[in-house]
Amino acid sequence: MPITANNPDRKTWLEVPHDSDFPIQNIPFGVFLTRDDIVTIGTRIGNTAIDLGALHQLGYFEGIPLTDDIFLQDTLNDFISDGKKTWRLVRNRIAEIFDAENSQLRDNEDHRTVVLFGLDEIEMQMPVQVGDYTDFYSSKEHATNVGTMFRDPDNALLPNWLHIPVGYHGRSSSIIPSEIPVHRPKGQTLPPGAKEPVFGPSKRVDFELEMAFITTDANHLGEPIPIEEAEDYIFGLVLFNDWSARDIQTWEYVPLGPFLAKNFASSISPWIVTLDALDPYRTESPKPEIEPLPYLRSKGKKSFDINLEVAIQPENSEETVISKSNFKHMYWNMSQQLAHHTVNGCPVLSGDMMGSGTISGPTPDSYGSMLELSWKGEKPVKLNDGSERKFIEDNDTVIMRGYCQKDTAYRIGFGEVKTKLLPVFQPKKK
Amino acid sequence: MPITANNPDRKTWLEVPHDSDFPIQNIPFGVFLTRDDIVTIGTRIGNTAIDLGALHQLGYFEGIPLTDDIFLQDTLNDFISDGKKTWRLVRNRIAEIFDAENSQLRDNEDHRTVVLFGLDEIEMQMPVQVGDYTDFYSSKEHATNVGTMFRDPDNALLPNWLHIPVGYHGRSSSIIPSEIPVHRPKGQTLPPGAKEPVFGPSKRVDFELEMAFITTDANHLGEPIPIEEAEDYIFGLVLFNDWSARDIQTWEYVPLGPFLAKNFASSISPWIVTLDALDPYRTESPKPEIEPLPYLRSKGKKSFDINLEVAIQPENSEETVISKSNFKHMYWNMSQQLAHHTVNGCPVLSGDMMGSGTISGPTPDSYGSMLELSWKGEKPVKLNDGSERKFIEDNDTVIMRGYCQKDTAYRIGFGEVKTKLLPVFQPKKK
Repeated sequence: MPITANNPDRKTWLEVPHDSDFPIQNIPFGVFLTRDDIVTIGTRIGNTAIDLGALHQLGYFEGIPLTDDIFLQDTLNDFISDGKKTWRLVRNRIAEIFDAENSQLRDNEDHRTVVLFGLDEIEMQMPVQVGDYTDFYSSKEHATNVGTMFRDPDNALLPNWLHIPVGYHGRSSSIIPSEIPVHRPKGQTLPPGAKEPVFGPSKRVDFELEMAFITTDANHLGEPIPIEEAEDYIFGLVLFNDWSARDIQTWEYVPLGPFLAKNFASSISPWIVTLDALDPYRTESPKPEIEPLPYLRSKGKKSFDINLEVAIQPENSEETVISKSNFKHMYWNMSQQLAHHTVNGCPVLSGDMMGSGTISGPTPDSYGSMLELSWKGEKPVKLNDGSERKFIEDNDTVIMRGYCQKDTAYRIGFGEVKTKLLPVFQPKKK
Repeated sequence: MPITANNPDRKTWLEVPHDSDFPIQNIPFGVFLTRDDIVTIGTRIGNTAIDLGALHQLGYFEGIPLTDDIFLQDTLNDFISDGKKTWRLVRNRIAEIFDAENSQLRDNEDHRTVVLFGLDEIEMQMPVQVGDYTDFYSSKEHATNVGTMFRDPDNALLPNWLHIPVGYHGRSSSIIPSEIPVHRPKGQTLPPGAKEPVFGPSKRVDFELEMAFITTDANHLGEPIPIEEAEDYIFGLVLFNDWSARDIQTWEYVPLGPFLAKNFASSISPWIVTLDALDPYRTESPKPEIEPLPYLRSKGKKSFDINLEVAIQPENSEETVISKSNFKHMYWNMSQQLAHHTVNGCPVLSGDMMGSGTISGPTPDSYGSMLELSWKGEKPVKLNDGSERKFIEDNDTVIMRGYCQKDTAYRIGFGEVKTKLLPVFQPKKK
């Protein structure tokens, strides 16, 4: 079935600013609270949010096999369970409804009133209930930088890294959408030179520039997903800020991996951009340095050319872009990650989320964490307001953005994930 | 509110075999499929399964604040969200209904017919939808054994171990109830002496004798749970077999922890025994070797005296008990684990599951894994049928059991978690 929604020549009757991440060729999916305090599934074109629940009730999805309440839910999980064919039918239909030549909704004011919302009339929610969240570690530059800093510059990459898309389980309950602030975590750390750990606020709160993909129900317990089928089970991607407390991490992570250093929060951009929408931006992954085992051999363009950037905005000040990277730097692609994750029969379900790991590029201005940008605090990063940062300070806001653009005036973007770091939590006096 | 359900003198009008794990003083909670193909929440006394959904519809829980459909669900999550006071009211009421002196249900055959089921008429399901699953590593004997085998016998415990209840995130989607078989996983391993990894069936499939506790909604993002409140958020416990592929684990786990070595399956006993039912079996934890930081200082008897055993049953043969351990050996208790888990503000929700880590005792016959019992394969374990085991073989069934007993003729038990290891999965020819 062709992805007609991607037609680059299509115009829409909705207004779309020139630099919007959401032209009619994007059509992402999200969940929002409306002015009537109702939670619904929706999409976005330009700066207009579109209530898919209302569109469906008005009959605009006639002919597509959807249950009546599929969009009247507070998560996308059930819609994602419907599978790739249905996602494509719905996205193609939405493109038709908003096509500049289609008068059906355009000229029906009653319908428009219940379907369309200004961005100031809605509040974005978590788009899915995340069952399980896995974080990979798939940027060779990032793994090399971390290995150089903390282990041995001559053997920065561990022996398994080129053979395995290394990953580990993360915490679902603390994944939150953009705009929800995060408290600086407290925890145990071992100060430099100390023999005993101390307890207190983390002094090294960091972001990690990642993207995450969301899956549909992929397999049953015991059944691996072959690499060539992996993309059938990927619904789409979001920007992902994997908040990290480096001092807590250093003390706790041997031998079972990061835990409290990571699970205090992970922030995502709220619109899921579908794999279909990203199709025109496919690209090769970096050439493998060694041939992986057969179950990890990936054919064709399985990576995506997605420009990424990170900015820090101190309180009451302007933002400074401190890193520009690209998703295409990932050594291991999503198909390899999903094939690896399931090769032992581990079940993957609708709404599961898989992070890429920090996406660092080859140059120092493309590193994806403060740990790398400030080289563990040795080289503070200068901001436009004259201040410096080794790590993130209280009341700083971290903003990540991402978009694809090639041969067209428009771009396909992710919007942003924007999170303020609050001071440590103060319990209310009883 | 007193836990009247624990009255040791209470008799029931239901038949309870002398050696049952489920006297009227237990009253665990589970989910089962009935003969009418309906999923319901229930409890068990002796060998009788009791449909709590039917009991509630018939008015037996009058006066307790419960929604009409609270037991007509396919998981216990919503009931667990109701909180400790409600759990206690319901458990106390069930004890009254089945008290030998209470004729209300006993003498009402119409009611009995819809409420009571024989065990052969039901099929146990997962009792909760597990949102997040965390596995701790809280047995000092186990951590010491593993450290001795794989690192340095003179520094077997890592520097953080006595300061932190070390834990890591596991996979929820592969947690399954007793009786569901598991396939031997395939994966990457680095054979001894080899320079390149190979792909194939794991040759070192192992169990881990654990228990896991199930939580209710405990805190919001950012808010720690103080250690003295931790038990308010613990609903109950199950037996937990944390299946492990040792050869996959060795190759993959540095630096981010175990992943595919663990997430192919974890098996649980299907009846959740409440913390209330375990109250008479409280005991001290082992004396701390060093004083932990204040947020981890635990007062009073926060551990439980629970006898545990593991048996292997080869196909068409009798079982052999290969280990006898006890939950009380855990160095870190559940209150410490939950206080640690949330000290950074990580949210804990209803249905979350937290594994203890392998529960090894001080003597070689009390070790909680084949890795330790066979000392990485160097000392094969003899079975009653004359065969030997270094690790688990295809078609072996692993059975774990647990119970408390003290000063009474009855015991409070968990039943069992029983899982057959099938050969590697063979995809169907297309």
